[in-house]
Amino acid sequence: MARPPIAIIMGSQSDWATMRHAAETLDALGVAYDSRIVSAHRTPDRLVAFAKGAKAEGFQVIIAGAGGAAHLPGMTAAMTPLPVFGVPVESKALSGQDSLLSIVQMPAGIPVGTLAIGRPGAVNAALLAAAVLALHDPALSDRLDAWRQRQSESVAERPSNES
Amino acid sequence: MARPPIAIIMGSQSDWATMRHAAETLDALGVAYDSRIVSAHRTPDRLVAFAKGAKAEGFQVIIAGAGGAAHLPGMTAAMTPLPVFGVPVESKALSGQDSLLSIVQMPAGIPVGTLAIGRPGAVNAALLAAAVLALHDPALSDRLDAWRQRQSESVAERPSNES
Amino acid sequence: MARPPIAIIMGSQSDWATMRHAAETLDALGVAYDSRIVSAHRTPDRLVAFAKGAKAEGFQVIIAGAGGAAHLPGMTAAMTPLPVFGVPVESKALSGQDSLLSIVQMPAGIPVGTLAIGRPGAVNAALLAAAVLALHDPALSDRLDAWRQRQSESVAERPSNES
Amino acid sequence: MARPPIAIIMGSQSDWATMRHAAETLDALGVAYDSRIVSAHRTPDRLVAFAKGAKAEGFQVIIAGAGGAAHLPGMTAAMTPLPVFGVPVESKALSGQDSLLSIVQMPAGIPVGTLAIGRPGAVNAALLAAAVLALHDPALSDRLDAWRQRQSESVAERPSNES
Amino acid sequence: MARPPIAIIMGSQSDWATMRHAAETLDALGVAYDSRIVSAHRTPDRLVAFAKGAKAEGFQVIIAGAGGAAHLPGMTAAMTPLPVFGVPVESKALSGQDSLLSIVQMPAGIPVGTLAIGRPGAVNAALLAAAVLALHDPALSDRLDAWRQRQSESVAERPSNES
Amino acid sequence: MARPPIAIIMGSQSDWATMRHAAETLDALGVAYDSRIVSAHRTPDRLVAFAKGAKAEGFQVIIAGAGGAAHLPGMTAAMTPLPVFGVPVESKALSGQDSLLSIVQMPAGIPVGTLAIGRPGAVNAALLAAAVLALHDPALSDRLDAWRQRQSESVAERPSNES
Amino acid sequence: MARPPIAIIMGSQSDWATMRHAAETLDALGVAYDSRIVSAHRTPDRLVAFAKGAKAEGFQVIIAGAGGAAHLPGMTAAMTPLPVFGVPVESKALSGQDSLLSIVQMPAGIPVGTLAIGRPGAVNAALLAAAVLALHDPALSDRLDAWRQRQSESVAERPSNES
Amino acid sequence: MARPPIAIIMGSQSDWATMRHAAETLDALGVAYDSRIVSAHRTPDRLVAFAKGAKAEGFQVIIAGAGGAAHLPGMTAAMTPLPVFGVPVESKALSGQDSLLSIVQMPAGIPVGTLAIGRPGAVNAALLAAAVLALHDPALSDRLDAWRQRQSESVAERPSNES
Repeated sequence: MARPPIAIIMGSQSDWATMRHAAETLDALGVAYDSRIVSAHRTPDRLVAFAKGAKAEGFQVIIAGAGGAAHLPGMTAAMTPLPVFGVPVESKALSGQDSLLSIVQMPAGIPVGTLAIGRPGAVNAALLAAAVLALHDPALSDRLDAWRQRQSESVAERPSNES
Repeated sequence: MARPPIAIIMGSQSDWATMRHAAETLDALGVAYDSRIVSAHRTPDRLVAFAKGAKAEGFQVIIAGAGGAAHLPGMTAAMTPLPVFGVPVESKALSGQDSLLSIVQMPAGIPVGTLAIGRPGAVNAALLAAAVLALHDPALSDRLDAWRQRQSESVAERPSNES
Repeated sequence: MARPPIAIIMGSQSDWATMRHAAETLDALGVAYDSRIVSAHRTPDRLVAFAKGAKAEGFQVIIAGAGGAAHLPGMTAAMTPLPVFGVPVESKALSGQDSLLSIVQMPAGIPVGTLAIGRPGAVNAALLAAAVLALHDPALSDRLDAWRQRQSESVAERPSNES
Repeated sequence: MARPPIAIIMGSQSDWATMRHAAETLDALGVAYDSRIVSAHRTPDRLVAFAKGAKAEGFQVIIAGAGGAAHLPGMTAAMTPLPVFGVPVESKALSGQDSLLSIVQMPAGIPVGTLAIGRPGAVNAALLAAAVLALHDPALSDRLDAWRQRQSESVAERPSNES
Repeated sequence: MARPPIAIIMGSQSDWATMRHAAETLDALGVAYDSRIVSAHRTPDRLVAFAKGAKAEGFQVIIAGAGGAAHLPGMTAAMTPLPVFGVPVESKALSGQDSLLSIVQMPAGIPVGTLAIGRPGAVNAALLAAAVLALHDPALSDRLDAWRQRQSESVAERPSNES
Repeated sequence: MARPPIAIIMGSQSDWATMRHAAETLDALGVAYDSRIVSAHRTPDRLVAFAKGAKAEGFQVIIAGAGGAAHLPGMTAAMTPLPVFGVPVESKALSGQDSLLSIVQMPAGIPVGTLAIGRPGAVNAALLAAAVLALHDPALSDRLDAWRQRQSESVAERPSNES
Repeated sequence: MARPPIAIIMGSQSDWATMRHAAETLDALGVAYDSRIVSAHRTPDRLVAFAKGAKAEGFQVIIAGAGGAAHLPGMTAAMTPLPVFGVPVESKALSGQDSLLSIVQMPAGIPVGTLAIGRPGAVNAALLAAAVLALHDPALSDRLDAWRQRQSESVAERPSNES
Repeated sequence: MARPPIAIIMGSQSDWATMRHAAETLDALGVAYDSRIVSAHRTPDRLVAFAKGAKAEGFQVIIAGAGGAAHLPGMTAAMTPLPVFGVPVESKALSGQDSLLSIVQMPAGIPVGTLAIGRPGAVNAALLAAAVLALHDPALSDRLDAWRQRQSESVAERPSNES
């Protein structure tokens, strides 16, 4: 049986409150994924093993979420040729500004495609990963088009006071 | 003859000083690209035409660079199913902090994979786009591995006072 | 019957909690308006149709509110000769700092007159739009003067502990 | 003879390096203006006299530029019913972040339509003022359309290495 | 009967929640004060009248609190030779960062001695005003010394878990 | 009997809510400490006495927590040769950004090893102090290794929805 | 012979480039001062001696400038009942944002009246100190009025291209 | 022969311009060190080998400098029980604000004692490392005391215009 093409990794259990939105979006698009906790700081061996083995495991895209001094996305990208998309998790004191800069400001040579802070970023990481897979998966491409079509159609013409 | 798989677009001629680093990186990797100026604000019709037609033109990945209130990456992503990677160009007064937030903080539904401010981001957008293409191009995958290998080997063991 | 001179547009239903303060202020001034949801990212076609047709529809001033990577005001301004006033909606993680920079930092050539983050900005966008209309509408000018007069008179001389 | 419809005011001589871009843009559009130095802090009487008399002087729109703790735009708006557009001048230590917040974060009741920091903001304040005047000046409306048309046409299709 | 030496002014009733801490501190020190609402934006005439007349009214020091684009302290300082101390009131979206910069970043020529954002700043404005008065009021000087002495003595030696 | 090797000092009782996490971490590691309130501003004499006497008292490492304009860590470091680790306590208006910069941006000559804002910083100050002591305390070194080992093992493999 | 009423202190020789503007302003106003280098971090004993003895030395107002983690103004204020005015010196990496927050965000109990970052702040600290002295020095009050009058008169009516 | 007790590592050759100030400070204190380039992103294997082997190599303290999304200090700390001190190297676009947050905002469990941005931080990392070693090296303790004594004595009493 085929391995899921997408890995969702995160630095701690508490990041799941954010990252589950990536998972739910992939569910809605019919894209399989594997979700794991990989802490760059508390489980560096697990990080090395995961990142170095991710391609051989059959993953095609990695979604990595972390907060604060968020090293997980960048360190994963340093050890895999796969595209890595980073989600800055909202941190307590600095509202994710530290997470964002720690993920996006990678030096030339090791890219992390970074999404927005928090839930929107998690949803979008899933959409971006799906867009990458859809380049060679016409059925997924159709599902993604339909998802976007529904999204456009769901925008009401006028604001309602019942929000 | 095949169309180049990657489009590099930017908001103005002045962004080329940054975005040419994406072009040069793709050159080094042997990946074809087309580079164009598409101003979201000054040429909105060109933006619509480009974004809506990008997939039909044969592009697979779009790299978009812009500065200040940088709307080009996000608006392009709104009108194409292709993956869009955004490069925040360093702005005069705010050093690219405005560019970064305008690109990365997209709402749930329309993703832009955002790279670092300035030259490192341009280089990395090219590397990330290449990593996406390499998923289905073993020869490019080998070239990318070799590029990364050379990068690792070029790191000296000890600092030199002759810099 | 005359078309309302002012359009209030916003990126999503959730922005209405902020933008209704613009509507209420126009109500208080006896200025007609039309309020619509136009998402730059989720409904780009609606955006293009609205912005290009706004002048022909009879609008004279456009008030546009959006949050995060807020592209609606600037993209509207790119496609209409009408004055556009932007309201940065307070965002979750960054409190509207991203909204503000995404709206105000427009490049030379396409202006958006930007107001304060959140409710004060929405009220003020309405007042500024009314001030523009009042240049050629003496009755509105009188109502605006009266509104400001009442505002001045409502400021108590001394602070009260009963707030 | 008719009074110029636009006043360009600024807090000090040094702001002219920024604000002359507003003047030059109005020159290019064939819109008359009067430019004056009005320091909110060093010449408060001049400020009161100017702001209270601006409408009677025949002005229709006021463009106000200032830097640092920039009080000129907001205080002018407090004493005139005319639309006021503010230009945050780039400050030495904080690059205009102080100027921007001091101008844009006006409380509900007194609006200042704020443009970008520095030269782009000065150009855009002129364009926005012209757009307001063009609502009742078809000839100016045509000139503004032509100006924007030329701007769009001046955007090259492809980046050039000769920049 | 002597006029109170200190005026506490604020931009709106809502600022009283912060500024009453200045009043309470002056009460504790036995220093008389007058507290008033003076809105730079909504009551500019009241501002001019107050600031120009403050010295003649017998005030010696002015404490001015305001939030957002906080122009009250600086505009008051522009129209009085008396020392002005500014208190940045915590604003909703930007937590008083806008208030702080709008007050402290005054240009050379018109000083505002600025205190911390919010309640600590209000308390300290009172203490600083009292320190100024104490230069020529030995009894107040003694009360201020005693206040500080009590403050030092109130600091426990060890932290307690009962907080 | 031996003096505890670590002093935990803080600027006020309210900092204990943060700093007790340093104490609890040292408890878990079996490292003795003394915790005291030393306010740089309200009890400067106590600060001088503590800092100058800390080495003679037998302390080897000092952990200092403070918020806002946080001078306690730096001033302590100025008066003792012992290593000082600083914990920026989260402040009300600025979320600890002021605390962080006030502690970390020490001039060349007087170092403060600064940890993260809030609880994580307090925990880490304890771990860092323990790591310093462990250089010459093999038993503590073993306990620290075990603590880190347990920490690594406590990271679950997969996220759980029961958080 | 009378002692100078004002002390200008600074953290290092390099701060003099900023603080000499305070000295020059006092010279222009005919106010005597003493200027000294007092490093909170490198010469804490000198700080304690200065601050505790400042009142006895005959000083009435203290102007303190420092950069980075700027503890000099606040620590001085902790040890003297005299009014202390702080000048945030522009720092290399953070342009004085660290200096500003380290000085202005003092906790309730110990005030520092803070001026703008850099040269404007140094000039204004001198003006504010003079305003304090002028409360009981009619001749100085007249000189200060004249200085401000000249300042107002030096503001040209119109901007000149010859700047 | 004994191994040097301190390792200075940095992410790239360009960081040496900053980190050599740590080396020079250790030279001045007579403390041996080894300096190496270890890029977390470009040479992750070298990072793992270095960090895991650092204690066995005989190092006692690690000084790690890096810029931008600076992961080197934190990742090193994740794989060694030795104390790690981090130096945020000033980055091009964001002046080291990204470096600082990426280093200091470590999650609870893995500490990095962080110093100031740039040269002052490099000097201070060396002084802090020496202070740690001096706890068990009386001769070094004396040299460190002498170094600090000379530093105090080198502070002039009065500012000089000849800077």
